[in-house]
Amino acid sequence: MTPRDAIETARKLTPRLASRAAGYDAEGAFPAGDFADLADAGLLGLMVPARLGGAGAGFADYTEVAMALAEGNPATALIYNMHASVTGALALTPDDTARALGAAEEFFAYRDSVLRAAAAGALYAVAMSERGIGSRLSRVRTSYTPAGAGWHISGSKAFCSGAGHAQAYLVAARRGDGRGDGSDSGGGRDSGGDSGGDSGNHKVSYFLVPDGAGITVEPTWDSLGMRATASHDLHLDVTVPRDALLGGVEGLTLLIAQVMPQWLVASYAAVYAGLARAAVDTAAADLAGRGLHGAGAVRARLGRADAQACAAREVVRQAARRVDADPGAAGTSRWIWRAKLVAGDTAQEVAASVLEACGTSATRRGHPLERLYRDARCGALQPATSDVCADWLGCAALGLDPDAETPRW
Amino acid sequence: MTPRDAIETARKLTPRLASRAAGYDAEGAFPAGDFADLADAGLLGLMVPARLGGAGAGFADYTEVAMALAEGNPATALIYNMHASVTGALALTPDDTARALGAAEEFFAYRDSVLRAAAAGALYAVAMSERGIGSRLSRVRTSYTPAGAGWHISGSKAFCSGAGHAQAYLVAARRGDGRGDGSDSGGGRDSGGDSGGDSGNHKVSYFLVPDGAGITVEPTWDSLGMRATASHDLHLDVTVPRDALLGGVEGLTLLIAQVMPQWLVASYAAVYAGLARAAVDTAAADLAGRGLHGAGAVRARLGRADAQACAAREVVRQAARRVDADPGAAGTSRWIWRAKLVAGDTAQEVAASVLEACGTSATRRGHPLERLYRDARCGALQPATSDVCADWLGCAALGLDPDAETPRW
Amino acid sequence: MTPRDAIETARKLTPRLASRAAGYDAEGAFPAGDFADLADAGLLGLMVPARLGGAGAGFADYTEVAMALAEGNPATALIYNMHASVTGALALTPDDTARALGAAEEFFAYRDSVLRAAAAGALYAVAMSERGIGSRLSRVRTSYTPAGAGWHISGSKAFCSGAGHAQAYLVAARRGDGRGDGSDSGGGRDSGGDSGGDSGNHKVSYFLVPDGAGITVEPTWDSLGMRATASHDLHLDVTVPRDALLGGVEGLTLLIAQVMPQWLVASYAAVYAGLARAAVDTAAADLAGRGLHGAGAVRARLGRADAQACAAREVVRQAARRVDADPGAAGTSRWIWRAKLVAGDTAQEVAASVLEACGTSATRRGHPLERLYRDARCGALQPATSDVCADWLGCAALGLDPDAETPRW
Amino acid sequence: MTPRDAIETARKLTPRLASRAAGYDAEGAFPAGDFADLADAGLLGLMVPARLGGAGAGFADYTEVAMALAEGNPATALIYNMHASVTGALALTPDDTARALGAAEEFFAYRDSVLRAAAAGALYAVAMSERGIGSRLSRVRTSYTPAGAGWHISGSKAFCSGAGHAQAYLVAARRGDGRGDGSDSGGGRDSGGDSGGDSGNHKVSYFLVPDGAGITVEPTWDSLGMRATASHDLHLDVTVPRDALLGGVEGLTLLIAQVMPQWLVASYAAVYAGLARAAVDTAAADLAGRGLHGAGAVRARLGRADAQACAAREVVRQAARRVDADPGAAGTSRWIWRAKLVAGDTAQEVAASVLEACGTSATRRGHPLERLYRDARCGALQPATSDVCADWLGCAALGLDPDAETPRW
Repeated sequence: MTPRDAIETARKLTPRLASRAAGYDAEGAFPAGDFADLADAGLLGLMVPARLGGAGAGFADYTEVAMALAEGNPATALIYNMHASVTGALALTPDDTARALGAAEEFFAYRDSVLRAAAAGALYAVAMSERGIGSRLSRVRTSYTPAGAGWHISGSKAFCSGAGHAQAYLVAARRGDGRGDGSDSGGGRDSGGDSGGDSGNHKVSYFLVPDGAGITVEPTWDSLGMRATASHDLHLDVTVPRDALLGGVEGLTLLIAQVMPQWLVASYAAVYAGLARAAVDTAAADLAGRGLHGAGAVRARLGRADAQACAAREVVRQAARRVDADPGAAGTSRWIWRAKLVAGDTAQEVAASVLEACGTSATRRGHPLERLYRDARCGALQPATSDVCADWLGCAALGLDPDAETPRW
Repeated sequence: MTPRDAIETARKLTPRLASRAAGYDAEGAFPAGDFADLADAGLLGLMVPARLGGAGAGFADYTEVAMALAEGNPATALIYNMHASVTGALALTPDDTARALGAAEEFFAYRDSVLRAAAAGALYAVAMSERGIGSRLSRVRTSYTPAGAGWHISGSKAFCSGAGHAQAYLVAARRGDGRGDGSDSGGGRDSGGDSGGDSGNHKVSYFLVPDGAGITVEPTWDSLGMRATASHDLHLDVTVPRDALLGGVEGLTLLIAQVMPQWLVASYAAVYAGLARAAVDTAAADLAGRGLHGAGAVRARLGRADAQACAAREVVRQAARRVDADPGAAGTSRWIWRAKLVAGDTAQEVAASVLEACGTSATRRGHPLERLYRDARCGALQPATSDVCADWLGCAALGLDPDAETPRW
Repeated sequence: MTPRDAIETARKLTPRLASRAAGYDAEGAFPAGDFADLADAGLLGLMVPARLGGAGAGFADYTEVAMALAEGNPATALIYNMHASVTGALALTPDDTARALGAAEEFFAYRDSVLRAAAAGALYAVAMSERGIGSRLSRVRTSYTPAGAGWHISGSKAFCSGAGHAQAYLVAARRGDGRGDGSDSGGGRDSGGDSGGDSGNHKVSYFLVPDGAGITVEPTWDSLGMRATASHDLHLDVTVPRDALLGGVEGLTLLIAQVMPQWLVASYAAVYAGLARAAVDTAAADLAGRGLHGAGAVRARLGRADAQACAAREVVRQAARRVDADPGAAGTSRWIWRAKLVAGDTAQEVAASVLEACGTSATRRGHPLERLYRDARCGALQPATSDVCADWLGCAALGLDPDAETPRW
Repeated sequence: MTPRDAIETARKLTPRLASRAAGYDAEGAFPAGDFADLADAGLLGLMVPARLGGAGAGFADYTEVAMALAEGNPATALIYNMHASVTGALALTPDDTARALGAAEEFFAYRDSVLRAAAAGALYAVAMSERGIGSRLSRVRTSYTPAGAGWHISGSKAFCSGAGHAQAYLVAARRGDGRGDGSDSGGGRDSGGDSGGDSGNHKVSYFLVPDGAGITVEPTWDSLGMRATASHDLHLDVTVPRDALLGGVEGLTLLIAQVMPQWLVASYAAVYAGLARAAVDTAAADLAGRGLHGAGAVRARLGRADAQACAAREVVRQAARRVDADPGAAGTSRWIWRAKLVAGDTAQEVAASVLEACGTSATRRGHPLERLYRDARCGALQPATSDVCADWLGCAALGLDPDAETPRW
């Protein structure tokens, strides 16, 4: 399967996802049927290199796939986004870069096995956020300590999309033994941590934690929108093998946030750009089906929404092209933050306006616009929020270093 | 109870309503506890003259009461608004005006009994809208025919807030015998109808239909917002006594829409002005409670929302004062439409912005802002919609007759 | 002349002001004809007590007068606002309050003479802002020192509306001798200064400086909008008599900013509320005159603009009523900041939208909408700017002390 | 010169244009220095095929050049846009298409001479609009009649950018002899007219009228913004040779509006997208230069403006790519209208917000933001206006034929 095939496949799945979306939303249920379809179609291997059985896609390809899925069901696309972030970050980090970051040689075989499993249908989720700290990596409280040949991880995560349905979770945790980085040998080489402090417990590291005993899902997710993402709380009290520490290197999380902001900031953007498009198309079909072409106010709302939705999509695509062409560049980062801001705000504005165009009948539960309206409100609130994006972009426009100016993670 | 007492009473009830709002919303249940409180407090008699046991309130008093109730639970205030419309229109039409419209003398005793019952705790609802026609009175399909000494009414209504919980329904129906206005004697005097046509079946008349056999509630209301209004479908196949025809005069509905637009257009406005206020106050309490004072973006959202909410309230109050001072005047009508437009749009904008200020935690079901955000979306969509209001006001500003320019009812 | 007479008089002047506005704007000239009319009509004595020959108006009366003048020419109203601020602050400070602030007894005779002159046609202006510091009183660099029986004032002011046309200027200046507050006797009693510091040069004081030698106007005002306000730079190198120090007390400026925020924050609001009204009415007349009633988009713009303009006016009026009823109260202050925010933003939005409704022909210089569009942009930028107002109001909503949170002056 | 060279050249000229923009704006003068530079650089031949001495650019190339020029001086870019429209429409119409429209063989040599002159530095302007009809081609009153071997054209045009400085004007005129199309032989073949009516005087045709006797410029252009475009009135009482009738075919104007909407609708878009970019960059430089990085409200304004400006540019670029790839397609047309809508609205919103961020000092005449703010207001008002675009796009979204639904030209 080429990336182009994958995009076509995703577009063909759009109507199937759309037809099931109301049900998953009503029940607040993980879209199991959608993910069965995605696995069958090989789309869980989108980011996996061809040599490992995947489509070998880049970020722009991901963006097209995610937009197509979101046009069907934004919640499904949001869970998929997390899986793509894990597999994409693993697949697209060049070996040399990984080595420069300190990756042990055994990491590469481990990574390949993880990716090969995805191509075969394994689903990965991200467990980064915690209650009260949002997605601020620097404040993570979940901790890890050396345990035999591996690690013990203990703590609680929130907003973990796909919780209970993933084969493994990408978990951010803080070195918790309090004894610094050099005094024990359990944990691979030391990258220097994220703060340069004298104590190893500043290190926040990534682990890929397999589902199983020690992983408990608390079904807390009961939200205004994106109800089918199963973004429940996840409690960890689990021992993992040594290679679960990604790269075999402690303290990489903040570095990765700055090197690959696309997966933390802009991968959502495709979801909300797709959602905005779906809202316009759904509204147009609803109005046309009811013979309501005539009113000027209705036309004006639809016309402006169409232009806004298209604009958001172009921004997201341009950001994605930049990520592929010049990953990590300062100019690329600006596009990433623009994409998040524009997509999140546009989804909300477009959904609100076309719902108004369609009127009270579209506010009944079960009507797709009722659901899209609720889903749309979530985009600007997901990290980085629109207000944070605006500040980041304002700093950049002023020639400041937006990451230095205010800690974002 | 004076009007001032009633307003104070309503304000004291605000916290009780707020404490129950999440439950009624979750169940989509009529707020029975709230209406028990309202009846106990005598607030169902707000518009009833003192001589009949009520508070003898005017429109401005109603506005204050409705805003206070909406600060507690907008859905409760919306049902209350319908009750106030029925009792207010009856109570505030001068006897001379009623006689000039053709009211029979027996009407006045009937009216007094209806109002006296409200003061004693009876709840009235409005059944005007129908599927596919919205609230366009001129297109009503529910029909009535003479039946013995009374009338038979047959048809279906939609969006009837309080359905199944009212003691009587104000029903708009069209004379359906096809035999014109003069040929039978069952129905009181003829006011000439709303169209001057040659056939009586143009007449759309108001009936106050007691709950009971022949009234069936179909529980269709399952909506994005205002979930507790029980705005279900109502099916009528019922015979009512002669005096159920309001005023004893056929064909008054459109006339009343033009003479008393406040009850059709602006009575909602107080509900959404109160909702906007509640959203700001709830967000401020939520943020302060979490210690989130610091962020400039949060302050800016809250500050602008506060100013917008206050502006909406002032517009609604000014409209109400005009209604009391100069009912039916052209200038008063303009304020009525302004109030509906500003309150509906402001509620939506304010709720969306403060939810964004409070972040993802406020989007969990059960959080008051999650509910207010959904409730707030309904205002601009209720008749007259914001787009219709804007057009009406634009016509008026241009010196046209907005009611003649485009049929609004 | 009663306040009501004054309001009627102002409304009668509106068309005269409107007829001359284009000329003054084109030339960037002080509206001398307008001020001749205002003086003739006695409106320069609006705030002056009746016992001194004035109308004895309150803040709400001022608001009505300023809105009426702004409907004719916003620039004229803006200059008038400065005059009203000086006379209003003098007239409406109770004698007891003045004494409590430390006012010497001779102050009252001086104050009466100043006010009597206004009633007779004297115009006063405000010279508070300076380049690079805006209107931040705490950063004023213009300095004063004792000089014989009086004071010597030296420095430069910017944005002094009416510069070159006033009989006296209210000047904020900082005690500049560097010798502290107690060590010399030249300057009346010491109120303790605004900072509690040990050095008298923290004191920023108000002087009413008569026009004459030592006052130089540098014609710098050449602005996008409000071109006729003659808001030029003012250079001072002048000795004034002892009683030019207002109240005979040093260091009062910040105190007054907090006690009477209406004159610093909300008095502009009436100007921009009137401007918004003028923009709507002008656009309606322009469109009607060209027979352009038909287009839905035009009606919608006009209808929304009408509602917004009316909302702004109600907020401004409510703020004014609060000032009169409960000056200095915390709740009153919130209304003052709301009025500034809403009026400034509304003027801009309304003018931009109705200009778009009227189309390219209305962008020709000389067309009133072309001028109003430029004038309207200035409101949100004048202190306190809209962004500052939003922050202030956000702090207040969160229960913080907005004046303590961030220094505003 | 390749198209890529041309784009680079334009970008190098940006600072020169920017440095002269204030002067041309202040004087309301045609930017003669800019056009001398453009002619010297060969940019007047941008759209001219290489075989005729030009750069052989496509629409996407034009878009980049126009954005670069607009970043320097939007008024210059707007005049250039008209020149590019004339040369681009001539150069990019395939010979086969021209023949299918009825073009005589002698047209091709004439066309080549026109284009060759442009490559050598000739400037062309467009004289389409008339007072009271805007740009509605179907209502054109300027008339033409056969006159000897050529045509006599008589009438008045408005908003003719570059008037008095062009070597020839593209003039839309209506066959005015009233005798129908067949009865005289003066005017080439009949394409059937634009209305299918029975009378030839329905035909509205294009002429390229050389400057000279019979062409009078009335200096009426004195506008809010885009003051340097010299968009004066043009009075025509002139006889032109036979081949001045474009294509040698009468009645082509409306057809061309539908076949090449890019030149009538979207070519402006690049100008306003460039303007928006210039506004953001100018504001950032202004703020950074004054050390005003700190305020959150300033950053937020700048960050959002940056994202909006980038979004507009991407929409304009996507539309341009579509024009090149699939000219005349329905999907291409939708992008064209989107580009006009988004660019026009974005320019206004961005300029208003960044001016507010920079504050009163940026409103002084001579400050680039003061000018850009005025220029920016013009985009949404130029045909097709934003409101017309929204309606067109709403029709298209609803599956209607937007050109049939309402006559746009």
